Amino acid sequence: MAKNVSDEHGFKGVETISSSSSCQSSSSPRSSPYVHDVGVPLKQNLLKEIAAAVKETLFADDPLRHFKDQPSSKKFILGLQAIFPILEWGKHYNLSKFKGDLIAGLTIASLCIPQDIGYAKLANLEPQYGLYSSFVPPLVYAFMGSSRDIAIGPVAVVSLLLGSLLQDEIDSSANPVGYRHLAFTATFFAGLTQFILGFFRYIYIHEHIFFGLRISCLMVGMIGYRLGFLIDFLSHAAIVGFMGGTAVTIALQQLKGLLGIKKFTKDTDIVSVMSSVFSSARHGWNWHTILIGISFLIFLSVTKYIGKKQKKFFWVPAIAPLISVIISTVTVYATKADKHGVEIVKNIRKGINPPSVKEIFFSGQYAGKGFKIGVVSGMIALTEAVAIGRTFASMKDYQLDGNKEMIALGTMNIVGSMTSCYVATGSFSRSAVNYMSGCETAVSNIVMACVVLLTLALITPLFEYTPNAILASIIISAVVGLVDIEAVTLIWKIDKFDFIACMGAFFGVVFSSVEVGLVIAVSISFAKILLQVTRPRTAILGKVPRTATVYRNIQQYPDATKVSGILIVRVDSAIYFSNSNYVKERILRWLADEEEHVKENSQPRFQYLIIEMGPVTDIDTSGIHALEELFRALQKRDIKLVLANPGPVVVDKLHASKFQELIGEGRIFLTVADAVRICYSKMELEP
Amino acid sequence: MAKNVSDEHGFKGVETISSSSSCQSSSSPRSSPYVHDVGVPLKQNLLKEIAAAVKETLFADDPLRHFKDQPSSKKFILGLQAIFPILEWGKHYNLSKFKGDLIAGLTIASLCIPQDIGYAKLANLEPQYGLYSSFVPPLVYAFMGSSRDIAIGPVAVVSLLLGSLLQDEIDSSANPVGYRHLAFTATFFAGLTQFILGFFRYIYIHEHIFFGLRISCLMVGMIGYRLGFLIDFLSHAAIVGFMGGTAVTIALQQLKGLLGIKKFTKDTDIVSVMSSVFSSARHGWNWHTILIGISFLIFLSVTKYIGKKQKKFFWVPAIAPLISVIISTVTVYATKADKHGVEIVKNIRKGINPPSVKEIFFSGQYAGKGFKIGVVSGMIALTEAVAIGRTFASMKDYQLDGNKEMIALGTMNIVGSMTSCYVATGSFSRSAVNYMSGCETAVSNIVMACVVLLTLALITPLFEYTPNAILASIIISAVVGLVDIEAVTLIWKIDKFDFIACMGAFFGVVFSSVEVGLVIAVSISFAKILLQVTRPRTAILGKVPRTATVYRNIQQYPDATKVSGILIVRVDSAIYFSNSNYVKERILRWLADEEEHVKENSQPRFQYLIIEMGPVTDIDTSGIHALEELFRALQKRDIKLVLANPGPVVVDKLHASKFQELIGEGRIFLTVADAVRICYSKMELEP
Repeated sequence: MAKNVSDEHGFKGVETISSSSSCQSSSSPRSSPYVHDVGVPLKQNLLKEIAAAVKETLFADDPLRHFKDQPSSKKFILGLQAIFPILEWGKHYNLSKFKGDLIAGLTIASLCIPQDIGYAKLANLEPQYGLYSSFVPPLVYAFMGSSRDIAIGPVAVVSLLLGSLLQDEIDSSANPVGYRHLAFTATFFAGLTQFILGFFRYIYIHEHIFFGLRISCLMVGMIGYRLGFLIDFLSHAAIVGFMGGTAVTIALQQLKGLLGIKKFTKDTDIVSVMSSVFSSARHGWNWHTILIGISFLIFLSVTKYIGKKQKKFFWVPAIAPLISVIISTVTVYATKADKHGVEIVKNIRKGINPPSVKEIFFSGQYAGKGFKIGVVSGMIALTEAVAIGRTFASMKDYQLDGNKEMIALGTMNIVGSMTSCYVATGSFSRSAVNYMSGCETAVSNIVMACVVLLTLALITPLFEYTPNAILASIIISAVVGLVDIEAVTLIWKIDKFDFIACMGAFFGVVFSSVEVGLVIAVSISFAKILLQVTRPRTAILGKVPRTATVYRNIQQYPDATKVSGILIVRVDSAIYFSNSNYVKERILRWLADEEEHVKENSQPRFQYLIIEMGPVTDIDTSGIHALEELFRALQKRDIKLVLANPGPVVVDKLHASKFQELIGEGRIFLTVADAVRICYSKMELEP
Repeated sequence: MAKNVSDEHGFKGVETISSSSSCQSSSSPRSSPYVHDVGVPLKQNLLKEIAAAVKETLFADDPLRHFKDQPSSKKFILGLQAIFPILEWGKHYNLSKFKGDLIAGLTIASLCIPQDIGYAKLANLEPQYGLYSSFVPPLVYAFMGSSRDIAIGPVAVVSLLLGSLLQDEIDSSANPVGYRHLAFTATFFAGLTQFILGFFRYIYIHEHIFFGLRISCLMVGMIGYRLGFLIDFLSHAAIVGFMGGTAVTIALQQLKGLLGIKKFTKDTDIVSVMSSVFSSARHGWNWHTILIGISFLIFLSVTKYIGKKQKKFFWVPAIAPLISVIISTVTVYATKADKHGVEIVKNIRKGINPPSVKEIFFSGQYAGKGFKIGVVSGMIALTEAVAIGRTFASMKDYQLDGNKEMIALGTMNIVGSMTSCYVATGSFSRSAVNYMSGCETAVSNIVMACVVLLTLALITPLFEYTPNAILASIIISAVVGLVDIEAVTLIWKIDKFDFIACMGAFFGVVFSSVEVGLVIAVSISFAKILLQVTRPRTAILGKVPRTATVYRNIQQYPDATKVSGILIVRVDSAIYFSNSNYVKERILRWLADEEEHVKENSQPRFQYLIIEMGPVTDIDTSGIHALEELFRALQKRDIKLVLANPGPVVVDKLHASKFQELIGEGRIFLTVADAVRICYSKMELEP
């Protein structure tokens, strides 16, 4: 703990300050210690102020930037390029880039085909719908997306989420057609959600064109933005936990295929699944299936290990799934293992995506349900895609445009919903392979889409004999990477509250369901924000030794010394209604504690309370009230309230509320050091 | 705008700093410029850390304080005194204090009797229930409450809220008995809510006694606290708007009584009420009633004006209502005006509160409904009582104990619900009269309760002939004070967002209903918090002229000068998942803007980016990730990242995440000035 400075010591501290400032006065002609005024910003026009605030809130990344001071024709081209980034980077496309994209595209295609068939099962859809979703969406994305590394298609987490949400509404086995229609409806609304988030930010760009629409667009933009807001509320920790939990759930689900169990629960929680597995242990397991499944799972794990150890063999785990599929399919076909109880894919339709516009529910009760499911899965898909896009963008150091991403993902899902695709997004495992295979642009997605097209058109029927056990082992080996132990350890080290959020989401998914986990993740993240704003930190400051003007938290700097007769408190947050009363009472409690301490050591009583307002970025009516109450409480005890270093907004509001007049002249200083110096000199005068 | 400093000027600034510190070195033997280390707090025990955080969050006002280091017997007495503050202040009670309390008690009694009868009507209850609620609750409060000035009883806003919530469930005219039962049920749960908020904080005091219960108590306390949390989310501005709107709604409702309208809408919104008033204009208005109502309304307004102008005549408006009641009752009785269509109170039961324990629904569907209504009205009542208590406590400079208040209010409403009372709380108008009449302690509430007791026991039947118009004018004159134009003006001046919240709540109540207004008030308050945490402020810093080490926002201090080659950015908030990405991108945008500016003026490029971390009170995993991404982005541009003045928590987490190792040695400084000095000197070495 810091010890109080004795009277003369404290005085000496002040002397040091004056001597250093008089020393500085060699460059300044003034002989008295200089006190700089606290700046009051110029009064701005209210409308301008609001417009600036709205712009900063909604359009933080300043999408207008490139459009400034350009002729109209140029603006049109820039606008087109903004919507179709391919027009921009396509100009510089060349053969060497294509070489990289071709290899990367072929590699991710070989990885995506078996994954797609498996993921479609997770969404309770027939296998071809997985392949469909790896054909149209990547093509659309390639023209509109701004990430160079993301690989588009169905992903495990979204497939499971969509599957479990849809299953709650329509039973996929009892009514497969209705179920599929609802899936397309949800996909449509997922795309619409993503599109709206991006699009209404763009309208702002052209607001000077559609002048009359400005206000209404702003309003709609606000609503769109509100949705986008939600993405910010999934903290990194919550996502790690949610992803990990989903991975465990998906892996557990695959036990059905891996062990060849016929009667399996529809629930996804660990208790139901494990009891389902054990209850079927005696007669439900198929030993041929287990043999195939386990041996290929080992094969995939070994290839994964090789790829991890030797970076140059990254392609080994990437093509291993396709090899497994080919070998196992041929084996099953040759040995007629399907007659011995080995489950095979069986139904897989040949041919490219049939249109599905007419299958979307635009009215009726299922439109509303599809809308809700679409919004949730659209948001999750967006979160995943943006996270992946940002990760690889920061690795290659290019900026990812949030708007373009949202519009691209939204458009591709809207188009997808009309061409028999379900929700597609960026896949982490395939994007990583894409990156490592040396992709240069989104052309690798086009290459992948072409391979999928050929597969659909020509060789789909060959997958009929693919055993389900292989798909299960491919999915298991793909999702175990989502359980990120390293990240969890780091979270535990850095922030215990984050860790709780992470574990809450994880166990919520594993023990209950994906939706419950999601709700837990969002609520814990939210609770943290509320805690932050209602209980801000405060600290007692002391002078750091061997510095003239540096006052810091005495708990962080135990050798910092308090100034006798002056209590210096720092408030570490904007003072709002949610914390104003707490801040007031906390300061009074600091004062009471310190007064007790001072009394015990028979040191002089406090005459000044200085509040360091540096971190107080804003204050509202309740905050001003709290300060007024504090001032009155101090007045009763004959202690003067002094403020140091208030920011522009705070100064403005103190002025508007006449608080400055209330506490009197010369009570607001630029720095704590100034305040201490002046207060200390006055204390000498009033013994 | 601040202008960039030229090379030599910037260097000179640095020179000044070194010279001032070498000047200071007369007291320190070191000759090289001194750089203080950034403090790393001692690693605390995790459990202790969590316990401290929980304590600070839930028990911010430290209710343990007086119990420290006391023997057990003393602890018991202190505990009793904590529950019954009357045991403490009763010891010092004397005749002179009683004189003050007697006069104040009589004054507020004369004010409360007519108000009670009117407010009971607002709650759709028979008039005697208002009087009942002014008898038992004030008595209970006097023993347990800690405010000396609050006057307890039914209040307008809560009566209206309760009436409109109850009416939604049971129609008071069709089923008056069921309605009354539900009212008591709601009152019971309102009291329970208030009690729980206070009580579970107390358990913490005795946690060392019930050691085994500690965890479970903490859990329940947390839940109780969560509810209490909500109070913090009604901002001052929202309350002003809500109260004003409710006052207008109540006043409009009184047009029924004032104009003698028979057929009146049950809705409370201004449109329904006014159309009801106008459609009944031709034949529904009773001119006798209007004459009585308007003339007494004028009388009451005049007395109010007198009381406001001359502080010594404060008793005039206080007793005016009772005088009005007496005069009008006698007049109506004498002239038999009730035969001419003047509506009178008619049914009012003589005798004190009958027990009502058996009338409370503890099970069945109405228990749940009563619970919900109780929680909402209990919270609003608590908000009002605490606000009033705090206001007067700060005027007389005594501390109001939040716990004691909650327990006292809760107990009084629980007891009240069993003795035919509905929700009572602190009334602002009567508390103000109480204060001005010179009350000394809660004994004035006892005096008031005794007067109400006598009224109930002896003279209630006399009120039968009181015209409803008088009650209407008394209520109107009581609630107009709740429309606080002055506060609204101030809110407009200080914070535009607060003003929107205020108006939203006001118009929500006036144009829709009390509940809608409440929801709007809470949502706008909430939205503000979300905005605050997702879009924190950032600023570019410059050196304030004629100071050696002071770096401030150049927008606030336009004469502050930037240092060439170094960009200094301050982040004004904890960096959490909700804003980490924004903060990162905002800093990069500042950099891009400034680089453009530098290029235009052909000044040297940036080599360092200093982030002033002073206001960054905390950082989480997402925040660290954002910093890492920022570091990598800067690395690509050959700009070094330097941190200045990180707080204890941040230093701790930077260390745990190995961020410190990532950015390299000597990149974290105590002050911006230190960082600038060192960076500048290194820049000389790397041309």
